[in-house]
Amino acid sequence: MRLSRYFLPILKENPKEAEIVSHRYMLRAGMIRQQQAGIYSWLPLGLKVLRKIEQIVREEQNRAGAVELLMPTMQPADLWKESGRYDDYGKEMLRIVDRHERDMLFGPTNEEMITDIFRSSVKSYRDLPLNLYHIQWKFRDEIRPRFGVMRGREFLMKDAYSFDMDEESAREAYHRMFVAYLRTFKRLGLTAIPMKADTGPIGGDLSHEFIILADTGESEVFCHKDYLSKEIPGDGVDFDGDLSGIVADWTSEYAATEEMHDEAAFNAVSEADRIAARGIEVGHIFYFGTKYSDAMNAKVTGADGKDVPVHMGSYGVGVSRLLGGIIEACHDENGIVWPKSVAPFDIGLINMKAGNEDTNSACEQIYERLGNAGFDVLYDDRSGQAGAKFATMDLIGLPWQVIVGPRGLKSGEVEIKERATGKREMVSLDAVVERMIAEK
Amino acid sequence: MRLSRYFLPILKENPKEAEIVSHRYMLRAGMIRQQQAGIYSWLPLGLKVLRKIEQIVREEQNRAGAVELLMPTMQPADLWKESGRYDDYGKEMLRIVDRHERDMLFGPTNEEMITDIFRSSVKSYRDLPLNLYHIQWKFRDEIRPRFGVMRGREFLMKDAYSFDMDEESAREAYHRMFVAYLRTFKRLGLTAIPMKADTGPIGGDLSHEFIILADTGESEVFCHKDYLSKEIPGDGVDFDGDLSGIVADWTSEYAATEEMHDEAAFNAVSEADRIAARGIEVGHIFYFGTKYSDAMNAKVTGADGKDVPVHMGSYGVGVSRLLGGIIEACHDENGIVWPKSVAPFDIGLINMKAGNEDTNSACEQIYERLGNAGFDVLYDDRSGQAGAKFATMDLIGLPWQVIVGPRGLKSGEVEIKERATGKREMVSLDAVVERMIAEK
Repeated sequence: MRLSRYFLPILKENPKEAEIVSHRYMLRAGMIRQQQAGIYSWLPLGLKVLRKIEQIVREEQNRAGAVELLMPTMQPADLWKESGRYDDYGKEMLRIVDRHERDMLFGPTNEEMITDIFRSSVKSYRDLPLNLYHIQWKFRDEIRPRFGVMRGREFLMKDAYSFDMDEESAREAYHRMFVAYLRTFKRLGLTAIPMKADTGPIGGDLSHEFIILADTGESEVFCHKDYLSKEIPGDGVDFDGDLSGIVADWTSEYAATEEMHDEAAFNAVSEADRIAARGIEVGHIFYFGTKYSDAMNAKVTGADGKDVPVHMGSYGVGVSRLLGGIIEACHDENGIVWPKSVAPFDIGLINMKAGNEDTNSACEQIYERLGNAGFDVLYDDRSGQAGAKFATMDLIGLPWQVIVGPRGLKSGEVEIKERATGKREMVSLDAVVERMIAEK
Repeated sequence: MRLSRYFLPILKENPKEAEIVSHRYMLRAGMIRQQQAGIYSWLPLGLKVLRKIEQIVREEQNRAGAVELLMPTMQPADLWKESGRYDDYGKEMLRIVDRHERDMLFGPTNEEMITDIFRSSVKSYRDLPLNLYHIQWKFRDEIRPRFGVMRGREFLMKDAYSFDMDEESAREAYHRMFVAYLRTFKRLGLTAIPMKADTGPIGGDLSHEFIILADTGESEVFCHKDYLSKEIPGDGVDFDGDLSGIVADWTSEYAATEEMHDEAAFNAVSEADRIAARGIEVGHIFYFGTKYSDAMNAKVTGADGKDVPVHMGSYGVGVSRLLGGIIEACHDENGIVWPKSVAPFDIGLINMKAGNEDTNSACEQIYERLGNAGFDVLYDDRSGQAGAKFATMDLIGLPWQVIVGPRGLKSGEVEIKERATGKREMVSLDAVVERMIAEK
């Protein structure tokens, strides 16, 4: 993509309303724009990252056997009256009346609707286990939205729902999502720790939050430091097999959110191994048994011909919030430092002197070759000061920069800079593509 | 994907509420489920097609130089008061009040919000031309939603917005979208005819609707029959070049919607060339000059230092409605016949006798090999009658079926059936993959 044809409205000043670094950088880098309190437009650069995160989440859900569908944003109030949550939810639920005076709401979560879909079409134990998920915009009317996309009102969430014949099978479904989440956050470049968590208004008795540690985290969390370096299940993990060993290992040491914190148990951990820090919740999984299937009469017929209510769990990932979480974890004083897996472009190509015949022709050549080699390149082909171009590239945090100036070209060379380390080297014009392929 | 692990709730009966074939087949094939009047869940099979359509629309927008972003579903009422459309829109607009008593609405379209984004960040003629688009869920509170996804209330639309310094440049932007639409619908397997159209509440003086002919179309349309066979610009079309010749050719014969119909002009066409038919609108493009930029003070500074209001156009494609449109155009009495470009899977693999050692092992082998060759295969590995499996495969309309039965296997053969033609042939087990590659 040529920057001259892109839409990247960089802000030079730090926006006053942004209290935390991720919010500040997302606004400055032209990734988002606030339209109302807690409601954002995703500008092209932000949308690209959002879609990459979404795709990694999707791939790991699919790998774990979950099946994607898409429920609408608007839900009928009736379903929520059936489950009993219509009144419970309070003012965070955005309630709407349509032209025929029917009560609707903008879905904050989908337990009710998915249970309704399930009960209307699944009747037999033969169709289980089943895990259905979607990645859809939700709305929670937070009284004080803040921290940009970290606590917005309209936000993108992946929510999966598992259906099983009994508790044992439901726990296996829970394990599959547990392992899928470990893999997902790892691929996103994050160290996320599963911590015992409160179930809140979702209900149920088994729940983990996946937490990344960050000074700007919204709550205090407590865990054993082994979790920072524990091995993540690789590509070969068998989701049809027994995952209980992995889950046992990942829950063997102390890890709890503030609500579930047990001071005595934590103090039993040796002091050198204790971590008390602030954390950001990026995922939350629940097993809640028959809470919704009982209330909404979602039954299946077992092998013995008897009807039983299905055992359910739900599994959320805050997709839009993850952009904030990743930036909180991956930045320096000059801007964002994207993990390669979610970077909006692979490489930034800087023409230090746009209009100059030599730099233009070298840049065009590099741009074409990198594109042919499968790289997604953002080419700063605009007129303007080199200094401003460097600052923009550092701010938007692409993994690599290729810098083309008239002086280097005289000896047939361009500069390559790695954003994360700041390491620079000169390479010959002809070697740029090979060098980048080697770094892939 | 193995059907035993998928979620494909086929309906055996024709649903009473479905008046037209696309609605009937979408419900029966387990593609959608109605949650409220005009509001649907997209079940896995339907979602796959929706995403394929969306991706083709996206690729052609990008090719034409438009840049993708994503605006939120919720919009502040203030923007619509600024443009003057807040009251105009009437009861079709879903109005919402949040917990702080602020007026919001579920966006039915985005002229106001995109103009707001534009005016806050684009100041100079150097940044033009610019075309920004998004693919987002919209809501129109239709008084009588019907025909399934063809006239739903919550629907997915691609809407692009162009910004130019003057009318001449804006007309070039209009031409780019005109040509992009010709290509888009062609890739979707449709014959869409651009017809002179009324601008309605969007405003402006230049507009075309892209119409596909279908007996179940919502309105009457009139055109020259040459449009049914006119050549579509190929992959080599240069969107940086002059497209006016293509547009002139595609507007040289009579073509008009009911609102713009001119009986006398139509009758001047020779009778053998006249088509009066029913049509389905799948795209609509507008040039409306400075209507919104005047009202909302969206100006840019020209090369001469003077501020001028930008000239705008907007360009919509009904992405979710297209599923209905494609099925109306592509079906027979047994079900859907998907164009290859949007088929939810490439091939349906039928195990006629699941559980039988020979058919199981042959199917597993074919399933793996086809997958390795890059085909997306839906494998019906469930127990059950072969007849029901055939009916399901015909209903969901995948381009090819590979049918594996014990009798054929005795001579080392399986059957291949082309859904569109019904043509069947026996091929040896080892030749299946090559045969399918040859058909790609």
